[in-house]
Amino acid sequence: MRATVMYGAGDVRIETVPDAHLMEPTDALLVVTRAAICGSDLWPYKKMVPSKTGQRMGHEFIGIVEAVGADVRKVKVGDLVAAPFAWSDGTCIFCQEGLQTSCLHGGFWGGTQLDGGQGEAVRVPQADGTLVPLPVGKDNVLMPSLLTLTDVMSTGHHAAVAAKVGPGKTVAVVGGGAVGLCGVIAARRLGAEQIILLDRHPDRIALAKEFGATDIVSERGDDAIERMRGLTNGLGVQSVLECVGYEESTRTALRIARPGGAVGRVGVPQDEVMPAAQPTFFNNITISGGPAPARAYIEELLPDVLDGRIEPGSVFDWVGRLEDVPDGYRAMNERQAIKALIEF
Amino acid sequence: MRATVMYGAGDVRIETVPDAHLMEPTDALLVVTRAAICGSDLWPYKKMVPSKTGQRMGHEFIGIVEAVGADVRKVKVGDLVAAPFAWSDGTCIFCQEGLQTSCLHGGFWGGTQLDGGQGEAVRVPQADGTLVPLPVGKDNVLMPSLLTLTDVMSTGHHAAVAAKVGPGKTVAVVGGGAVGLCGVIAARRLGAEQIILLDRHPDRIALAKEFGATDIVSERGDDAIERMRGLTNGLGVQSVLECVGYEESTRTALRIARPGGAVGRVGVPQDEVMPAAQPTFFNNITISGGPAPARAYIEELLPDVLDGRIEPGSVFDWVGRLEDVPDGYRAMNERQAIKALIEF
Repeated sequence: MRATVMYGAGDVRIETVPDAHLMEPTDALLVVTRAAICGSDLWPYKKMVPSKTGQRMGHEFIGIVEAVGADVRKVKVGDLVAAPFAWSDGTCIFCQEGLQTSCLHGGFWGGTQLDGGQGEAVRVPQADGTLVPLPVGKDNVLMPSLLTLTDVMSTGHHAAVAAKVGPGKTVAVVGGGAVGLCGVIAARRLGAEQIILLDRHPDRIALAKEFGATDIVSERGDDAIERMRGLTNGLGVQSVLECVGYEESTRTALRIARPGGAVGRVGVPQDEVMPAAQPTFFNNITISGGPAPARAYIEELLPDVLDGRIEPGSVFDWVGRLEDVPDGYRAMNERQAIKALIEF
Repeated sequence: MRATVMYGAGDVRIETVPDAHLMEPTDALLVVTRAAICGSDLWPYKKMVPSKTGQRMGHEFIGIVEAVGADVRKVKVGDLVAAPFAWSDGTCIFCQEGLQTSCLHGGFWGGTQLDGGQGEAVRVPQADGTLVPLPVGKDNVLMPSLLTLTDVMSTGHHAAVAAKVGPGKTVAVVGGGAVGLCGVIAARRLGAEQIILLDRHPDRIALAKEFGATDIVSERGDDAIERMRGLTNGLGVQSVLECVGYEESTRTALRIARPGGAVGRVGVPQDEVMPAAQPTFFNNITISGGPAPARAYIEELLPDVLDGRIEPGSVFDWVGRLEDVPDGYRAMNERQAIKALIEF
């Protein structure tokens, strides 16, 4: 089969790899129908040390079940299913608590041991715990929005939940990439009154306004903090969604939260330490977040997508086929595209 | 009047200072009957740059109201009152939310502008918002426990609340100083099942066991983390109370929390950055805490002290008079005493 392999920074290739096949009785074999390129795929695209073996890529995908192992009970051949960006058994202590990204018997797609979603087929471990059947046809018009549930929309929602967004609250979203844009959707869905996006790219800003952003702050660093104070009676916001992961964006996020506020971080941290340990302490800021338990959120958000109440699929502004994936990486990395959708 | 003035690291003096007196119509004048030396007083005691003017010390005190300004309505002359370690107006947006340490018109005792609690009298700004009347006589046997409500017991409680301690939970308390010991009391009071104290001092350990600690970990760094895993089925604990403030203790606190767990930090951070930004992210750890809104917690915890359900006053193992305060600092700094009580 054909799949995406990354060999180093900027080096993404579509190659013939061994066919995905069932290995464990709890596996399912999935033929991929849609996949995406994630902002987090750009971290290795920028920084990966060259590798001879390479690593398989892609963790956002929807597909049709082609085969299941002997112990698979819930998922059936022919089902159209969404695969969250982490696989999980659905039964361990953390899965029971709804934190499937910490499943004791789970893990993440791709790398050197597992198939990735940016390929024609995927062996899905712990299929019953992992996969969520979708009640639509494989080419349904909602497919882009459904695909976002596997990561970015669930991740934006996680940021909002971690930041304790609720009715009437003031919210800031740091970073207007696909996750940040989904964070705007999530904040509005949860009833936020003021939603301030911190970003400077016109295409993202336009989409954020469509999604419900009420204010835009394009300054950075101390200037951004000053603008934010001006927009919030000098207090800062109650909820901040950190959707980037850099030290500077994290510092900004932590400093624009008002006393007693909360910061939900979903941008993968690129540094070993977190800034602003002291001001966050003196202001009693809560810092939360991490990899979103998309497995749980897919079920929570699915009705809103099916009913058209949220349309996160609009974050896709680039569509290609599997052989176009390297160009999709390039377009996203050069900020010519917000997010790339791959059709099979 | 006589009061405590710190002039530099290790340089604490009892001196004659201008008499405290009413200045604003919202002030009260308090004659101090009990005060304490705080673990946080040891930070300047260790590090303060020499100063010619010095700074007034003490933020935990109980006293009798001797005079009130024209606008004071709730507090009356003759009242025995507890003063939380921050003063606050009781009416601003943050006071209304129960975060009086961020009061828009409040502040902290001592320094160069205000009286401190380690002195014979204190001018109390925003008296109606700040002071909590106590329904006992000034020499009541519960006085040590009541005094802890002004800071350490409220702070231990805040750590537990921030760490989401609840019935049946597994809890670790990092640091067995007076605040950590009160954290043990708070964790037990909130229903924790397993309470692990990380400390190595026999006197603190003995007291922690009296207060309800179920396990003791005296290792440090990686060894402490390994011991903790052994005590928690390899998972880590659900709630961690960070009661020290050093980089190493914070790192330990963040690393012994299990996925989805929470760390409540009340040790004043001594570093500008927080460690473990990545593992806390990947484990979805919530980090919360800061200066405790003791003003709110005094009212919450007071009934438990009055009924004898909690006895945090046991943290005082040194008692002296005002002129003994410099020796109290020395005893606490050399770890000969856990906490010093000053009787007037």
